Amino acid sequence: MTLTKRKLFKLGDIVRQLGGELIGDPHVRIHQVATLESARSTDIAFLAQSRYLPQLSQTRAAAVILGPEARDASSLPRIISANPYAYFAKVSMLLNPPAAVEPGIHKSAVVDKSARVAKSTSIGACAVIGKEAQIADSASIGPGCFIGDGASIGAGSRLHANVTVYHECRIGARCIVHSGVVIGSDGFGIAKEEGVWKKIPQIGRVLIGDDVEIGANTTIDRGALDDTVIADGVKLDNQIQIAHNVRIGANTAIAACVGIAGSAKIGSNCALGGASMIYGHITLADNVNVSAGTLIMKSLEQPGTYTGVYPFSSHQRWLRNAAHLRQLDDLVKRVRELEGRPRKAERDKS
Amino acid sequence: MTLTKRKLFKLGDIVRQLGGELIGDPHVRIHQVATLESARSTDIAFLAQSRYLPQLSQTRAAAVILGPEARDASSLPRIISANPYAYFAKVSMLLNPPAAVEPGIHKSAVVDKSARVAKSTSIGACAVIGKEAQIADSASIGPGCFIGDGASIGAGSRLHANVTVYHECRIGARCIVHSGVVIGSDGFGIAKEEGVWKKIPQIGRVLIGDDVEIGANTTIDRGALDDTVIADGVKLDNQIQIAHNVRIGANTAIAACVGIAGSAKIGSNCALGGASMIYGHITLADNVNVSAGTLIMKSLEQPGTYTGVYPFSSHQRWLRNAAHLRQLDDLVKRVRELEGRPRKAERDKS
Amino acid sequence: MTLTKRKLFKLGDIVRQLGGELIGDPHVRIHQVATLESARSTDIAFLAQSRYLPQLSQTRAAAVILGPEARDASSLPRIISANPYAYFAKVSMLLNPPAAVEPGIHKSAVVDKSARVAKSTSIGACAVIGKEAQIADSASIGPGCFIGDGASIGAGSRLHANVTVYHECRIGARCIVHSGVVIGSDGFGIAKEEGVWKKIPQIGRVLIGDDVEIGANTTIDRGALDDTVIADGVKLDNQIQIAHNVRIGANTAIAACVGIAGSAKIGSNCALGGASMIYGHITLADNVNVSAGTLIMKSLEQPGTYTGVYPFSSHQRWLRNAAHLRQLDDLVKRVRELEGRPRKAERDKS
Repeated sequence: MTLTKRKLFKLGDIVRQLGGELIGDPHVRIHQVATLESARSTDIAFLAQSRYLPQLSQTRAAAVILGPEARDASSLPRIISANPYAYFAKVSMLLNPPAAVEPGIHKSAVVDKSARVAKSTSIGACAVIGKEAQIADSASIGPGCFIGDGASIGAGSRLHANVTVYHECRIGARCIVHSGVVIGSDGFGIAKEEGVWKKIPQIGRVLIGDDVEIGANTTIDRGALDDTVIADGVKLDNQIQIAHNVRIGANTAIAACVGIAGSAKIGSNCALGGASMIYGHITLADNVNVSAGTLIMKSLEQPGTYTGVYPFSSHQRWLRNAAHLRQLDDLVKRVRELEGRPRKAERDKS
Repeated sequence: MTLTKRKLFKLGDIVRQLGGELIGDPHVRIHQVATLESARSTDIAFLAQSRYLPQLSQTRAAAVILGPEARDASSLPRIISANPYAYFAKVSMLLNPPAAVEPGIHKSAVVDKSARVAKSTSIGACAVIGKEAQIADSASIGPGCFIGDGASIGAGSRLHANVTVYHECRIGARCIVHSGVVIGSDGFGIAKEEGVWKKIPQIGRVLIGDDVEIGANTTIDRGALDDTVIADGVKLDNQIQIAHNVRIGANTAIAACVGIAGSAKIGSNCALGGASMIYGHITLADNVNVSAGTLIMKSLEQPGTYTGVYPFSSHQRWLRNAAHLRQLDDLVKRVRELEGRPRKAERDKS
Repeated sequence: MTLTKRKLFKLGDIVRQLGGELIGDPHVRIHQVATLESARSTDIAFLAQSRYLPQLSQTRAAAVILGPEARDASSLPRIISANPYAYFAKVSMLLNPPAAVEPGIHKSAVVDKSARVAKSTSIGACAVIGKEAQIADSASIGPGCFIGDGASIGAGSRLHANVTVYHECRIGARCIVHSGVVIGSDGFGIAKEEGVWKKIPQIGRVLIGDDVEIGANTTIDRGALDDTVIADGVKLDNQIQIAHNVRIGANTAIAACVGIAGSAKIGSNCALGGASMIYGHITLADNVNVSAGTLIMKSLEQPGTYTGVYPFSSHQRWLRNAAHLRQLDDLVKRVRELEGRPRKAERDKS
């Protein structure tokens, strides 16, 4: 990763490249994106939620990106887009392109002579590339990365510093893999015999599609027998643990600290909240949302949002309330009895 | 880790080496292990749970491993074993032996001249071995690993790429340590004085026994005063956090994302489910099972399975139900009052 | 990190340097600190909690550190201090000073010629320092670390092996960063357009104050637009995830496995228990304590301790009780109905 000189765009150029309707001076120069609150006079900001409307009137931004419903909410030069947040993402990518890959293998890198490394790739200092590994065009392997024997990294993918990819695993094109990620470590496969655990060799691989991003220190285990599979467009945050033989469908987004146990199948377009946990050997349908902190113990066949977290309170109040959870079954019986009593009493009376 | 040519075994040879009863042709050649569902005509599969019986009749496997109760459930060549899953583990190890260690120190590795490194070890590219560190026979230190001053790695142990072992820590024989693991970092020892935290030097070590496996990105802190101790045969999955002065008994297995706070003592043969959390300074007896997602706040003196997770539901239903948790104490009082009322009513009547 | 020869102090010297009242022989030689239970005849131990009083009478320690209330609880040579635990921390730091930094750049390190590296720093083997990075006086960069372009490390800070600091991030003075830490990785910024996630460039930085300690494998994401900020004196344990644009106030201590979602603001002097989780875009006041395992979903404006965890029980008992949680709303209705009934019954009677 090298420092990039930021580009500078005129509003008119932005609309020409990205579409949307421009209201106001097309010659306004935009240096950077910013929030409404912190924007300076050379920035473009955006309004994605109506609750930030008060900030719109206060912003010092040079221009703003607004939805159609807010087109008259500001007199600043503005771009009207049906999806201001996605539009802002694209403007930001225009103004902040990923650092260019400087082709070349650093002299301290250790690349096995049987590895197939495209000339347009960048291999960082102290990176180690194993036997018969493949690094495709314009890929970038950061300093200190390890790419195991027979592993392959797709075109245009960028591995930041200190990523580990075990043997025979495959990463698709245009992926971004952050530091500390481990791909292809052994799944937790053990069998007990006479009180002692025997290791089950993990002979599957990890197969990762195109356009996947993987956050820092996330781990994805290789399959026990078959492969672990992450489909195209999946976005994984930091410190996620994906066990052996998990399958994740296209364009699913998973927040930080999530754990997915072995052989779970997550559908496409799902969203798993931070620190949610998914049992092994279950299936989540497409378009399932799991709330943060929720443990999913059985398959979910219907789309929708699922939640299960204990609501917090002051510690004293929690102490008083939580103690009853261990007697909840008794409480229900007592209520059932109370409900029966009046009838019995009435019978006795009659 | 290097690519290994897989061996090929005849059924008769497998039974000769591993025991069990063979029914059918001993000359059938087995190339690989597989699940019943995905097995090809050169694979051996296994049936460990009766719910997979339907797959047994459909499998294309060359042979299967069955329990005594299922000995007639298939007409395929088959091995009968009291523990089909453990038998399968051993067959897989036969067919997929760990890659041979290629002795030698890579020229890019940095090994302090006072380190004692056995000739039969493999030290990977860009690995760094500190002063007076010891690497025993046939151990393998992966690329990018760091072994601190005075640390020792036992015979036959394999550290995958990018493992960090701090000074003076000890890893036993035949251990497997996956990438991103950190062993011997400082425990979280701080004391507050006049509003500011003072660091407490962490002067203990981490002592790890033989035949321990440690999953990717797991962290084990060194002891504050005494040592942190992991006994023989313990199996740790990925992203586990083990705090200072924890002690874990032999053959305990711990699933991913578990946290164990300082000075907790976990017995032998325990099983901690994924994302379970163990308070500090408590003791878990031998043979305790903790369910996934459960927080254990006090010592457990009896073997058994312990659980405490909020069951999930649709978000709407959760909202309706969870709100009452904050008034559960009130609800119990109301029920108590209701239970009292009829008696009072009866007194009034009489 | 190099092995340090431990110093040896006389009791009188300790009190001269650190204050406190000495009772007994000032010439007693102290080699090391220890717990009451494991102390040997050359160690000094401490009593911070009255529940360890029985151990005080049994200890073999050469001397002890006691609070004023316990000044007569032992006849051993003793130091009386208002805060025995903090005093012990300082004695331990005296006896176990951090290993001296050996200035110099290891010949296998890769330091960009535009980096500004003070002569008194230590750059470990295979460390990689980017363009225009700054490493201040007496800082120590461990083996295998990566310091990105334009990043800066403050005076006296120590990065253990295999730490990753992305471009333009700043770490203050006297910080300690443990192995596997990733600072400045991209936050989880994505916007959906036509069913596909677009990346939002993360153009903020991570700014870390002075005297911060960061535990092994903790991750701190760079800001999306503005910066992620960790104030002076913050102490972070292992495997913590801090998302983009989080702000953490001075002297807050966070235990292991905590996750803090994007743009959350944590006050000063807070304490977050292990595996607690904090929602995004909320604010925690100063002096807030969150119990282990608790999910905080909304802002906390008052100091105090907050808790929300499902209490564990035997699995069978949990099964019986937890099932009712999904019908808690019904139960409350039934109780409400029961409370109404008597009145109705009385009305009918009258």
